[in-house]
Amino acid sequence: MRAGDMSEADFMHKMFYPDNVAVVGASSSPRNMGRLIVQNLVTWEFPGNVYPVNPRADDVLGLKGYSSLTQIKDPVDLVVAFVPANAVPSVLDECSRKGVTRMAIPSGGFSEYGESGSELARVVKAKAREYGIRFVGPNGLTIINAENGLCLPFLPMSKREPGGISIITQSGGVGMSLIMFLNNQSANFNKFISVGNKLDLDELDFLAYLGRDPGTRVICMFLESVVRGSDFFEVSRSIDKPVLVYKANTTEIGARTASSHTAALANDDAVLDDVLRQANVIRVREIKRLTEMARAFELPPMKGNRIAIVSPAGGYAVLLSDLASKLGFEFPHLSEHVLDGFRQNVRADVIRFGNPLDLGDVLSSDAIVYGLDKVMEQPDIDGVVAVLMRRADAKYDGAYSALSREIYSDIGEIIKRHDKPLAMCLLTQCHYLRHVQSRMTYPIFENPEDAVEALAVSRDFHTRR
Amino acid sequence: MRAGDMSEADFMHKMFYPDNVAVVGASSSPRNMGRLIVQNLVTWEFPGNVYPVNPRADDVLGLKGYSSLTQIKDPVDLVVAFVPANAVPSVLDECSRKGVTRMAIPSGGFSEYGESGSELARVVKAKAREYGIRFVGPNGLTIINAENGLCLPFLPMSKREPGGISIITQSGGVGMSLIMFLNNQSANFNKFISVGNKLDLDELDFLAYLGRDPGTRVICMFLESVVRGSDFFEVSRSIDKPVLVYKANTTEIGARTASSHTAALANDDAVLDDVLRQANVIRVREIKRLTEMARAFELPPMKGNRIAIVSPAGGYAVLLSDLASKLGFEFPHLSEHVLDGFRQNVRADVIRFGNPLDLGDVLSSDAIVYGLDKVMEQPDIDGVVAVLMRRADAKYDGAYSALSREIYSDIGEIIKRHDKPLAMCLLTQCHYLRHVQSRMTYPIFENPEDAVEALAVSRDFHTRR
Repeated sequence: MRAGDMSEADFMHKMFYPDNVAVVGASSSPRNMGRLIVQNLVTWEFPGNVYPVNPRADDVLGLKGYSSLTQIKDPVDLVVAFVPANAVPSVLDECSRKGVTRMAIPSGGFSEYGESGSELARVVKAKAREYGIRFVGPNGLTIINAENGLCLPFLPMSKREPGGISIITQSGGVGMSLIMFLNNQSANFNKFISVGNKLDLDELDFLAYLGRDPGTRVICMFLESVVRGSDFFEVSRSIDKPVLVYKANTTEIGARTASSHTAALANDDAVLDDVLRQANVIRVREIKRLTEMARAFELPPMKGNRIAIVSPAGGYAVLLSDLASKLGFEFPHLSEHVLDGFRQNVRADVIRFGNPLDLGDVLSSDAIVYGLDKVMEQPDIDGVVAVLMRRADAKYDGAYSALSREIYSDIGEIIKRHDKPLAMCLLTQCHYLRHVQSRMTYPIFENPEDAVEALAVSRDFHTRR
Repeated sequence: MRAGDMSEADFMHKMFYPDNVAVVGASSSPRNMGRLIVQNLVTWEFPGNVYPVNPRADDVLGLKGYSSLTQIKDPVDLVVAFVPANAVPSVLDECSRKGVTRMAIPSGGFSEYGESGSELARVVKAKAREYGIRFVGPNGLTIINAENGLCLPFLPMSKREPGGISIITQSGGVGMSLIMFLNNQSANFNKFISVGNKLDLDELDFLAYLGRDPGTRVICMFLESVVRGSDFFEVSRSIDKPVLVYKANTTEIGARTASSHTAALANDDAVLDDVLRQANVIRVREIKRLTEMARAFELPPMKGNRIAIVSPAGGYAVLLSDLASKLGFEFPHLSEHVLDGFRQNVRADVIRFGNPLDLGDVLSSDAIVYGLDKVMEQPDIDGVVAVLMRRADAKYDGAYSALSREIYSDIGEIIKRHDKPLAMCLLTQCHYLRHVQSRMTYPIFENPEDAVEALAVSRDFHTRR
């Protein structure tokens, strides 16, 4: 990377923390899409100056408009060029005249659109090289930094507080859905990069940056192609944070499709699997799992291989132990101390106790909390999977009244007290699940299988060093 | 099966459509669990007589109580015995005296609880044989028939209208969650059988019954053991309805767990896989997929192997074509007629068209409906997967105002018009998804992968005959 007299790290930092942003192509027309970028910067309370640039120097949403970048007096840290593809080269010329070295180019119409687009791409790339400009895009949603409100997508977005998960995606649409999956769980992202055609800066530049970024604790990537396969290994090995990857484009038809929309090369799936494993990367094979598994790292680390499973039904105990067993977990016996405590709280003569522990007949919130606490306390258990079932439309009274107390805060306390992971799945109606998730700071999984896999992912990350 | 002078089919029919039910063990105590069975029969508006039976002949919820079965004047079609395990034999004696031949036994405390329980199980089985009594249970939630309100679980349950999916489960808790998964999608079940320890009637007896049952269109099974493996083949092959199976208990630890709660034998997974395939059974490997895949059959049948994929983002087009390709689907070219129609509706020069079709830049509800209709109309396409994305917290105005119209009813019409499956996934916030699902009669999938797999499941079922 070249960037004048700045270090690479400082240069990239300013891409995410610019003091100001110019949006070329933002106008006052209600149907103008660049206007939505300005709108997002306002909504997300970006603290620096925002300069709309359009031929008539229209003001946009109360912000003073400029007819060209050179009309702006102060230096400009970042230029968003949301203009038709064939107008992008002239914006580069203007950036050069203004001394701008960072750009975000959301516009489509380049290599994904046949030979004329490819020629345009070559021109843009050559000009950027000549001028010492680095850019993200084209054909992507570019950047969001939830820490400072730098929200550049051309879609209206609600402001969110920053979380610890950052996202790199080749597809803007998939990226938007990943943000939605996180928001649905009341989780938040820290930084978001939609690399699009990655004509200049690519996923590895951003991966390296996020590896250094203090706000990023976990990195999720949606990739269709990996153009610098050998560098991938080197960059990801140098990062001491969990990196989760969903790799699409693993079949011939996938490759054909990928090349139509981002002009990316196909990759051999088996080879990539090998590279990803050696690169300490966690591969995820269902798109929603990418954000679910990222949340595994919001729990204390799973430092060993010894698990306990606590289930509200014999059937779940069986299916979860099948899965945990396939994932290589061991099941220590529960101590007599734990079991005795349980027996005192339970209707007699109904169920045998062990690990996995079937709480189907334990009709008391207090007894369940007691049991979870004791199982977590047991020194030879490294982490616990607990499934709870709550039928939000049923009254917990009569024979079930001792179950009426909600135990989610207790579980949060138990996790803190023992500093071990308790991966909890709550089987319930969605509005109730969302309500619980919005009140708790630890992750609550929707699928029982995800809770077990979350501990496997955490174990694999924390024990392989 | 023996049942006096009745045919086997008539005998079993009366198990689900009894004229009346006695609930032994239901009392007026607020903490009595049998009372909840009576409550459910009332809530679900079971039309026949309900007779609570308890030592003091307490009335229950306004229904006249009896001190024993023999105090009831009329013949009793079905007796629920919810008493401690060691009292079950005497209820059998009483049933025999009363001439009752059908029982549901939810009580736990039998073979799942060691040697004393096993001895009790032997006694119960021998007495039932001697008396010509057939029963479901013990240690399960027994039966629900949504068609007539025969709702026998000892948990409070909200009444639901009958649907076409019936459930057989070895674990009551897993069964409850399957009902919840369906309800969450605004789908309903028809009949539900929790077989528990299946000491007498087992999953195959109920599978055979559901195969004949006009209300059941699709059968879902959660199994831990298959005690009559060779019969399974024969029964399921004789059924001309989709049968979906989740088989737990496929590892050594799973087997150990299963034997503690239902005393079922473990089964070899690979052998079983083979048996299930030969038995025309659809095997599902994640528990929530059991109900998702069952809903595939609420769409018109997928009669061939030629698919089209319509996606709101290039990345989803790629990942879905990867999956469809792995599942053996072919991707016919879209006709020039379809593509021309699209081009007229789309912002120029942005995207190439093909199958899969990336609608990321088609910012018009009308154009999307037009496209879906034309793709469905194409004779060499057997079914379509469509992913829609709707950010429920975003305003569809300005540049996006042509997307503000919701198209779910149009999609329902398109499915009807072309009598082909359109498996739609809606990526959105959960409250909005549930709202849409509650208004539509066709299934709407939550995960993009599920939409593709639903068509594969439908194709496999409809083309293998």
